[in-house]
Amino acid sequence: MITGKNCIGGKFKATGTLEFRTIDPKKNQHNPTVFIEATKEEVNSAGELAWEAFKTYRRIPGIQRAKFLNSIADEIMALGPELLNMYMLESGLPEGRAVGERGRTIFQLRSFAELVSNDDWRGNTFDAAQPDRKPLPKDDLRKTMIPLGPVAVFGASNFPLAYSTAGGDTASALAAGCPVIVKSHPMHAGTNELVASAIVKAVEKTGMPKGVFSSINGSVQVGIDLVNHQKIKAVGFTGSIGGGRALFDLAAKREEPIPVFAEMGSINPVIMTPNAISKRGSELAKTYAGSITLGTGQFCTNPGLLLTVKGESTAAFVQELAKETIAIVPQTMLHPNIKKGYESKGGDVTSQDGVEVVGKYKGDLDANEAASVIATVSGEAFLKNPKMHQEVFGPFSIVVQCKDEMELIQIIDGLEGQLTGTLIAEKNDDLNLVGIVDSLQNRVGRIIYNGVPTGVEVCPAMQHGGPYPASTDSRFTAVGTHSIKRWVRPISYQSFPMGLLPDHLKK
Amino acid sequence: MITGKNCIGGKFKATGTLEFRTIDPKKNQHNPTVFIEATKEEVNSAGELAWEAFKTYRRIPGIQRAKFLNSIADEIMALGPELLNMYMLESGLPEGRAVGERGRTIFQLRSFAELVSNDDWRGNTFDAAQPDRKPLPKDDLRKTMIPLGPVAVFGASNFPLAYSTAGGDTASALAAGCPVIVKSHPMHAGTNELVASAIVKAVEKTGMPKGVFSSINGSVQVGIDLVNHQKIKAVGFTGSIGGGRALFDLAAKREEPIPVFAEMGSINPVIMTPNAISKRGSELAKTYAGSITLGTGQFCTNPGLLLTVKGESTAAFVQELAKETIAIVPQTMLHPNIKKGYESKGGDVTSQDGVEVVGKYKGDLDANEAASVIATVSGEAFLKNPKMHQEVFGPFSIVVQCKDEMELIQIIDGLEGQLTGTLIAEKNDDLNLVGIVDSLQNRVGRIIYNGVPTGVEVCPAMQHGGPYPASTDSRFTAVGTHSIKRWVRPISYQSFPMGLLPDHLKK
Repeated sequence: MITGKNCIGGKFKATGTLEFRTIDPKKNQHNPTVFIEATKEEVNSAGELAWEAFKTYRRIPGIQRAKFLNSIADEIMALGPELLNMYMLESGLPEGRAVGERGRTIFQLRSFAELVSNDDWRGNTFDAAQPDRKPLPKDDLRKTMIPLGPVAVFGASNFPLAYSTAGGDTASALAAGCPVIVKSHPMHAGTNELVASAIVKAVEKTGMPKGVFSSINGSVQVGIDLVNHQKIKAVGFTGSIGGGRALFDLAAKREEPIPVFAEMGSINPVIMTPNAISKRGSELAKTYAGSITLGTGQFCTNPGLLLTVKGESTAAFVQELAKETIAIVPQTMLHPNIKKGYESKGGDVTSQDGVEVVGKYKGDLDANEAASVIATVSGEAFLKNPKMHQEVFGPFSIVVQCKDEMELIQIIDGLEGQLTGTLIAEKNDDLNLVGIVDSLQNRVGRIIYNGVPTGVEVCPAMQHGGPYPASTDSRFTAVGTHSIKRWVRPISYQSFPMGLLPDHLKK
Repeated sequence: MITGKNCIGGKFKATGTLEFRTIDPKKNQHNPTVFIEATKEEVNSAGELAWEAFKTYRRIPGIQRAKFLNSIADEIMALGPELLNMYMLESGLPEGRAVGERGRTIFQLRSFAELVSNDDWRGNTFDAAQPDRKPLPKDDLRKTMIPLGPVAVFGASNFPLAYSTAGGDTASALAAGCPVIVKSHPMHAGTNELVASAIVKAVEKTGMPKGVFSSINGSVQVGIDLVNHQKIKAVGFTGSIGGGRALFDLAAKREEPIPVFAEMGSINPVIMTPNAISKRGSELAKTYAGSITLGTGQFCTNPGLLLTVKGESTAAFVQELAKETIAIVPQTMLHPNIKKGYESKGGDVTSQDGVEVVGKYKGDLDANEAASVIATVSGEAFLKNPKMHQEVFGPFSIVVQCKDEMELIQIIDGLEGQLTGTLIAEKNDDLNLVGIVDSLQNRVGRIIYNGVPTGVEVCPAMQHGGPYPASTDSRFTAVGTHSIKRWVRPISYQSFPMGLLPDHLKK
């Protein structure tokens, strides 16, 4: 069923010559399908078709776009086990995760369908005319949101469904009225093609303009051509800091710069007070061993940094955390390159002066399975060495033992921007929790109290995004219904007659 | 009273050696005060003080910030005629305009004070916990807005008060909880110093942290040092495309890129239907002659491009518009450089193939007075030559006579982004107004029906900003209370105890 071709405005095409195959990380071998990278002409064609589609798609009522999104959800479900099998084959992730992530993808599509079924999401603003105002009359002004134009979406390695072809970026952009061109992640081009075919069916069934969706395969150059295409007006990306920053730089250098929403690296600091550790250290060790190894640590909200104050309970906690973590059965990573990156970054951090490896999984490992690691270091050493701040994408966490609260706050203040920060504390804690929260909130997009950062709820109050380098634009979220705001801009209509106003501004 | 020094966190200092003086454009001579450019150390010091101030200022309740903003307004009014005289001396603008612009500045300060007197502006979002949800419980999530950090504001040449030292950018940033460092416009450093001294008094009277406001003088290098300062987290700018783009490029290249809100060039297309012209051509000629020459054409919303369909009435209208425009008494431009730019850009446009000058003011001119110009060209010639799209900052407008509606729409679709677009039409017009509005709204931030683009109301439904190059971020407005959104970002609190939540999230 899989053709290995690019999907250009509903047609599967491949005129290029560059080939690649995905990998089965469990077997550590290439999968059979040969994929063809998109040519520059194919990228251009997708861009022009998207622009043509934009002219009609932007005027299609929200209720029709909702039908389209729901139809995409239906067609994805109709793919049945074929999609789940392809997902597992290309990612090494287990069936439970495949089903769960598909469920999240469907939920997102249906949430955005519901959101745009009426026009409340536009946050319309009305200023009534004051014809008798002195010295000058005031005109009637009505403000609403309109879509930016075609959006380029880059699939995420760690979410082959929920943050890829029909994931959060695509669903929110289509909901907003923006055509989408997806650059498939080379690790799961097969999963992409199945989902793309589902979207194409939904386009046909609901009578959407053909160019509203395209999907192209390829490596770096294809991404560059896409972001540089004049008709692309915004970019969504989930991945590494290097990748996201490269796209941001490209977009900023265009003759017409365009916004890039790159959700990138994060070590998600967790502050544990000595009180919390001494009261429930064992429970915390279990909970955090689970969070650190969840999905083989391949989540952007993985807790890679634990900050606390040194002491006897802390010393015991660190040992217990290591024991619990390495007791968890290792799982396969997404790709040999990701495993390589995990080992080299982890090695880099643990080789820094003052870092001690408290525990490392020692059992046998299959080809792409990851050995979990718990390391520890003093606050003083951590403060001096920003190399310890780097994200180790995988089941890794470093516990920083500060000499006191002041050093802990100093470390928080010196951290790069983060997606999340977590505070584990007790009621009437000895530490100044208000001060910690004040520092922490200045570095992160979401603060969790007595919980874990993994698990990102899809809801309006979610903020997934934070100060750079957690994301390239901290003013927007990549998860939840508010993520639609990334793809729209305000427009005011002044003194407009009813007949020319959009329906949702007539009142 | 004017010292010529920089205001670093409330103290007037000048350790540098680079000097400059402002110009009286009416007399075409330098004004007496010698201003000293800020040194790199002074810029750094302002940045560090702003960061220190941010730590407390961000936690000051809105009601206190409102008092501060109202106090700034009071202190500006207390400057009395000294401020008005300095304004006129440095800008050549008449007293009526000085009083009017001061009124607008005060209104903006008080509007933002009112806005932040309660927390509605934060648009808080609440998702209730669902502890019994299956398969996983849902946590309580509450989202609000917090300030980004210190903001750099670049004063505008054409609004020495309303878009400069205590103008819209400063007022909205201070309201949001961000300290501000203003780089004064070199053309009105004296006006800046007076307003800065008023802000310093307000800082003292309301007990704000000293570093919450600084103002520095200087040319390009000072601006570069400011935007590159690590503690600056956003930039506001009003001015030329060249200047705004340079700041945007600098900010994008920083290790931590920061948002730049540059409100830049615009030719503000006005579409006049043949029906409207034949019914009320004379009235339109008078109205538009007034709008084109208002403030010597030195407004970002000046109507520099009139688009219509050729015909007998159009030919007569063009003549009448020229006659009415050049009948208006010329006024002094802001600065010799602005007059030079006006003449050279105007000369460039009118020397293009096919452009005919219909009318040009022929009387005597004082040193920096501007001769108004009305030119015309065919739609065919305009389509072929993007040089005709350039902004001629001053009392200049070009009328494009299209062969038909299709050519007119083609021209709209090919325009760069604009702050405004205007449609002058009749009820039951012969042209397809819906189609024109659909094209136009895709190129602009505000559409006016049967009015003029000059005159930008300060109100919630205003959108002042448009697709690039009208502004660097079309998703935000530079005018009106929503402009506060430029300086804040969302943050979510998950499972937070009441005691640690900000007051406005307790419920």
